Amino acid sequence: MADRERPVFPVAGLGAAGPVMVIGGAEDKLRDKVILARFATLAGGIDGRVVIVSTASSLGDEAVVIYRELFLGLGIGEVVGLRPEEREQADDPAGVEAIRNATGVFITGGNQSRLTQVVAGTKLADALFLARDRGAVVAGTSAGASAMASHMVAYGRSGATPKNRMVHLSAGLGILQGIVIDQHFEQRWRIGRLLAVVAQSPSLLGVGIDEDTCAIVHADRSSLEVIGRGAVTIVDGANVKTDAYRGKGYRPLMVSGAILHSLPGGYWFDLRGRHLLTAPSAPVQEREASE
Amino acid sequence: MADRERPVFPVAGLGAAGPVMVIGGAEDKLRDKVILARFATLAGGIDGRVVIVSTASSLGDEAVVIYRELFLGLGIGEVVGLRPEEREQADDPAGVEAIRNATGVFITGGNQSRLTQVVAGTKLADALFLARDRGAVVAGTSAGASAMASHMVAYGRSGATPKNRMVHLSAGLGILQGIVIDQHFEQRWRIGRLLAVVAQSPSLLGVGIDEDTCAIVHADRSSLEVIGRGAVTIVDGANVKTDAYRGKGYRPLMVSGAILHSLPGGYWFDLRGRHLLTAPSAPVQEREASE
Repeated sequence: MADRERPVFPVAGLGAAGPVMVIGGAEDKLRDKVILARFATLAGGIDGRVVIVSTASSLGDEAVVIYRELFLGLGIGEVVGLRPEEREQADDPAGVEAIRNATGVFITGGNQSRLTQVVAGTKLADALFLARDRGAVVAGTSAGASAMASHMVAYGRSGATPKNRMVHLSAGLGILQGIVIDQHFEQRWRIGRLLAVVAQSPSLLGVGIDEDTCAIVHADRSSLEVIGRGAVTIVDGANVKTDAYRGKGYRPLMVSGAILHSLPGGYWFDLRGRHLLTAPSAPVQEREASE
Repeated sequence: MADRERPVFPVAGLGAAGPVMVIGGAEDKLRDKVILARFATLAGGIDGRVVIVSTASSLGDEAVVIYRELFLGLGIGEVVGLRPEEREQADDPAGVEAIRNATGVFITGGNQSRLTQVVAGTKLADALFLARDRGAVVAGTSAGASAMASHMVAYGRSGATPKNRMVHLSAGLGILQGIVIDQHFEQRWRIGRLLAVVAQSPSLLGVGIDEDTCAIVHADRSSLEVIGRGAVTIVDGANVKTDAYRGKGYRPLMVSGAILHSLPGGYWFDLRGRHLLTAPSAPVQEREASE
């Protein structure tokens, strides 16, 4: 499995890149549809051409049908499905062409290892990099969110206390760098394993995303915006002291000095600087100014 | 409810004070009994006189019977039970006298609000301060652990994401200062509410204790030692940015910059300095020296 750090195609200037939406699963599909509506807007609305990649899903074409109806209902002009199930299908020129023409790509949930084992390192993956770099919005929910970064949580156990061997990484699609994403974060009790990951890999920023919540990584690849009902939890292990390097068995890990940020909708974070952003639209600043 | 910050009796020098053991509940009673054996040792073994305070428990005298047999089995010379159920009983001279002669006091689990509403601010509580200050070990498990500090989690909800109004404080016994204790920490998913507490009260250090795990606050009232099977999670909100002060309803709180320490058995922490201690016996130092 290649952990591709850079797209192989020439990329447009950073300013022209599209946003990446990382959704914690179970996004609202019935009421306000805050997250899906934002995707539809970023994908260009009536002029949009959206490709749904459903490889992760065990539902077969059903996942495509559900999201297709949702996106058409949200005003997207054209929506097609793409479901490679073998690596050679992920190199197929027709699929690459569909991504090449897309203004938005939506990667469904399911099994993130199935997704990356079919797609990562293929021409389809390269087409995804290029799509993002020329301004398309690339979104993933649940497994599709986990697979977005270079380092992916493949599987692991639940719990609040970090433990040895509770989490296993593999190589993700690599559309985002320097972070590791965990989804269904609050609902499946994943704070312990995210602490364990950053203790073992302090160069990575841990990003835990609750259900019906989305982290949007904007074109500068550093500004992260939170939307949705829950919170995005960011775990920074830059200054961590740990005994993870000599861990044995399934015992608690010592992790001292991790910095934690819990950010509800409306807040922004600087991934590169690893701190809360008050610009461009943080509620703190706005509301304090109005007092 | 008085939040008593200081004992009313004259206190011995700090060096002569006893340790305080804060246990996360469900401590091992059948196998190694690491935590209860440490209590028995600190209480003086065969020369020890232990008082069990069972007010929190709904089991009546049964809680006393269980711990009495355990402590006698661990070699304690004398074990008696004390179960005030009304505040006037907690002012009763006989109970105060029992505590005055004790080398160890063990406060059972149950309902911490019941415990503090009967005991906090009474002569029995004053006798507990005095016992600690003249060198007796004072231990509490579960509800007995929560009640140990001046600020006590009375009740709250589970979850990893901090939310408004998810946790309610009241005044504890006040034997420990400057911290707020939560127990059954991993098992009942209490990281979110501890983050919410320190966001609202950044002067308090949050101390979350897993089941079968104990934080021993030593005589200097700053050195915290972890023993047992799980971990002690320390949440430091000194540098937190938050919107907690304008929280409404049961929505996620913004908490940015909390520092988190997850410490398994064998590790030490400096409560006053808010950092990992490598002395007097931290495994990191020992093991590194042996490499």
